[in-house]
Amino acid sequence: MSESYLPLSPIRSAEILCVGTELLLGDIINTNAAFLSKKLAALGISVYHQTVVGDHPERLKAALEDAYGGRGRPAADLVIMSGGLGPTYDDLTKETVAAFFGRSMTMHEESLTRIKDYFDRTGRVMSPNNAKQAQMPVGATVFPNDYGTAPALAVSDGHRTAILLPGPPGELEPLFCEQVTPYLRRYTEGVLVSRNIHLIGIGESDLENRLKDLMVGAQNPTVAPYCQSGEVRLRVTAKADSVEEATAMCDRMIDTIKATDAAPYIYGIDLSGIQEAVVQHLTAKGQTVGCAESCTGGMIAQMLTDVSGASAVFKGGFVTYTNEMKEKLLGVNPDTIDRYTEVSEPTVKEMAAGARRALGTDFAVATTGYAGPTGGTAENPVGTVYVGIAAKNGSTALRLSYSATKSRDYIRTAAARRALMELLKIIRE
Amino acid sequence: MSESYLPLSPIRSAEILCVGTELLLGDIINTNAAFLSKKLAALGISVYHQTVVGDHPERLKAALEDAYGGRGRPAADLVIMSGGLGPTYDDLTKETVAAFFGRSMTMHEESLTRIKDYFDRTGRVMSPNNAKQAQMPVGATVFPNDYGTAPALAVSDGHRTAILLPGPPGELEPLFCEQVTPYLRRYTEGVLVSRNIHLIGIGESDLENRLKDLMVGAQNPTVAPYCQSGEVRLRVTAKADSVEEATAMCDRMIDTIKATDAAPYIYGIDLSGIQEAVVQHLTAKGQTVGCAESCTGGMIAQMLTDVSGASAVFKGGFVTYTNEMKEKLLGVNPDTIDRYTEVSEPTVKEMAAGARRALGTDFAVATTGYAGPTGGTAENPVGTVYVGIAAKNGSTALRLSYSATKSRDYIRTAAARRALMELLKIIRE
Repeated sequence: MSESYLPLSPIRSAEILCVGTELLLGDIINTNAAFLSKKLAALGISVYHQTVVGDHPERLKAALEDAYGGRGRPAADLVIMSGGLGPTYDDLTKETVAAFFGRSMTMHEESLTRIKDYFDRTGRVMSPNNAKQAQMPVGATVFPNDYGTAPALAVSDGHRTAILLPGPPGELEPLFCEQVTPYLRRYTEGVLVSRNIHLIGIGESDLENRLKDLMVGAQNPTVAPYCQSGEVRLRVTAKADSVEEATAMCDRMIDTIKATDAAPYIYGIDLSGIQEAVVQHLTAKGQTVGCAESCTGGMIAQMLTDVSGASAVFKGGFVTYTNEMKEKLLGVNPDTIDRYTEVSEPTVKEMAAGARRALGTDFAVATTGYAGPTGGTAENPVGTVYVGIAAKNGSTALRLSYSATKSRDYIRTAAARRALMELLKIIRE
Repeated sequence: MSESYLPLSPIRSAEILCVGTELLLGDIINTNAAFLSKKLAALGISVYHQTVVGDHPERLKAALEDAYGGRGRPAADLVIMSGGLGPTYDDLTKETVAAFFGRSMTMHEESLTRIKDYFDRTGRVMSPNNAKQAQMPVGATVFPNDYGTAPALAVSDGHRTAILLPGPPGELEPLFCEQVTPYLRRYTEGVLVSRNIHLIGIGESDLENRLKDLMVGAQNPTVAPYCQSGEVRLRVTAKADSVEEATAMCDRMIDTIKATDAAPYIYGIDLSGIQEAVVQHLTAKGQTVGCAESCTGGMIAQMLTDVSGASAVFKGGFVTYTNEMKEKLLGVNPDTIDRYTEVSEPTVKEMAAGARRALGTDFAVATTGYAGPTGGTAENPVGTVYVGIAAKNGSTALRLSYSATKSRDYIRTAAARRALMELLKIIRE
């Protein structure tokens, strides 16, 4: 084994190795693998494998051997590990990695002090086990953890590097961004930049057909579609020597795509969701919105208020789950419901208009429908949702029809997103 | 290679092998691995590895070799694969598995007919590529797909079995439950049953301390805690010869835990969330609820309406994001807000009482607070949330205090769950 404690050659490839029996039991979903993959891609580091093993030293050791050059797989320069840094007897990641690199463990006094401080600060009692979390392999680069007790660390023999992160995403994510990224930047070449074009109201296959030639021909940047409930994302990724150059390459591709007939479905670039586009447009225009929800049951309000700063444009909302409340709170005419039912175009228009009036906003968006799994009529089966938008010059409505085989959550999410897309179109007018 | 087309020996262990470059780029979160792990655990099949590889035949072949007996890892009897069954040129999972098992590909006429029917039914045009989805390795067991175009399949040489599933969870999950589970049941021994005890209002470490002896001593059933935003789950897992026996073993352990001082924090067993417990209790008592949300912005309404059948007990809700709306829609006294601010115990009590009055419900739950990342005062920093519950005999309030380093989503989710837990306690009284 080399005596080097830092990488001596560029880091071009990585394997992600998540440790935890709870992952193998399916008790938690592995969001760390996706987070780390995305961040490594942005650093220009290729990931060919993600692996999950239990808290089991021999399997962990075998997984490390495989990652650094197993049969039939490219040898990774870097293994990023998450989990197994806790204080209990079954947390063995650090010790296993130390043994793999032929390093002994030593007390890292600075970490010990930080852990003691952390317990003092949060008013909890430090157990003797927590001192184990300050033990480090000789020569490790330690990344102090402001979000929990287990420090992160890097171990390297010059050609093979391992980075160990605590498992909870609330610790792993900020530690990676604040400390691991600058560490890795010293050893990477070139950068990858990805930008996302967000679309609503067009299916993935329809979009692929329209952009087929462009997508197949694109090598750098590449263009790839991803489907989410009721929304499609086009990911544009460019590799270049600098962030600026790669970003400019992405932007030229985005302009090309904006010039196709996919344009009317685009709601924005690099946003957290349609709600962010709506809040941005309303803020720019100094306008306000409210909502009245039946089948989406608060989802639209929740999406809008998920945007920090939404309070400047979102005044409030109603969840009117019963007909009585549609009439009482929104002033929907009982005759309208009698004649057309509560799941109908006239009802949703009156809901939107009623919410706009009660809240005193520029716009209001309303939904009513059958999200399933039960309910629905012959005319309006499960999956039918009416969207209404009220504005200064009147109300409009739209009938959406999702497959009844979709889940309740899918139908509600897709309908909420589509409702906000329709709102956005009207705000833009 | 054996000529057998079905497993000849029991299936005791499995590896999960997910195929897809989009997973390695971090574009999608791998929910399939968690879903499959959980289902395999329930079948008594142990999972020691989860692996993700790209759409790359050589790496896929190497991953199969590793799974069926790689260095330092136990040989899996079964490899469950997801992804790479699509119609395009880079979907190569089926062909790679066929080559691995030494099988040629043959047209499966029944699948071809089903795919043609699927396109007819959905009014779309079938491309020649879709016919590729009906090609199957000789001797494969085909599982018809009612949720998409790619059939699932099993390939076995008697001792090594591979099951290939389409990647989209909306197809993979029902196919696994409806067709793969009965297939696997023929080759498994014993069953695992897991039951979950759900708790709110107690931290994971506090709970562990209280139940330490019980948890460490428990071998069958085992007891393990899992933390989610503002909620802890205790998973009780028993192995036995029959589902009935394993369930009874779990139930005895649950009774033991219910007799400890963790009892007041338990809201239910095997529920989708606190909202389900609230809806069940209200339904049983024939009572109703409404809500008035400021910082949770519709999340409580959305959680409640996520329970199918909630309409019997949930009448409606208000999202009052501005002070003006708190006053106008809920009748909060402007003096209360002037004197105590909108984030205070008196305000949240008036919000709850106002919602109860306006909606005519038995109970109303209200929230107001600072979910961050900006906002807050010296007295009530980011992370402070007041919860109010209005009932027939008056209103109560509770002040919650989350760490300001937690995300906006965490604070909103944890506060919404805790608010429903407080409501449940009052409903139970």
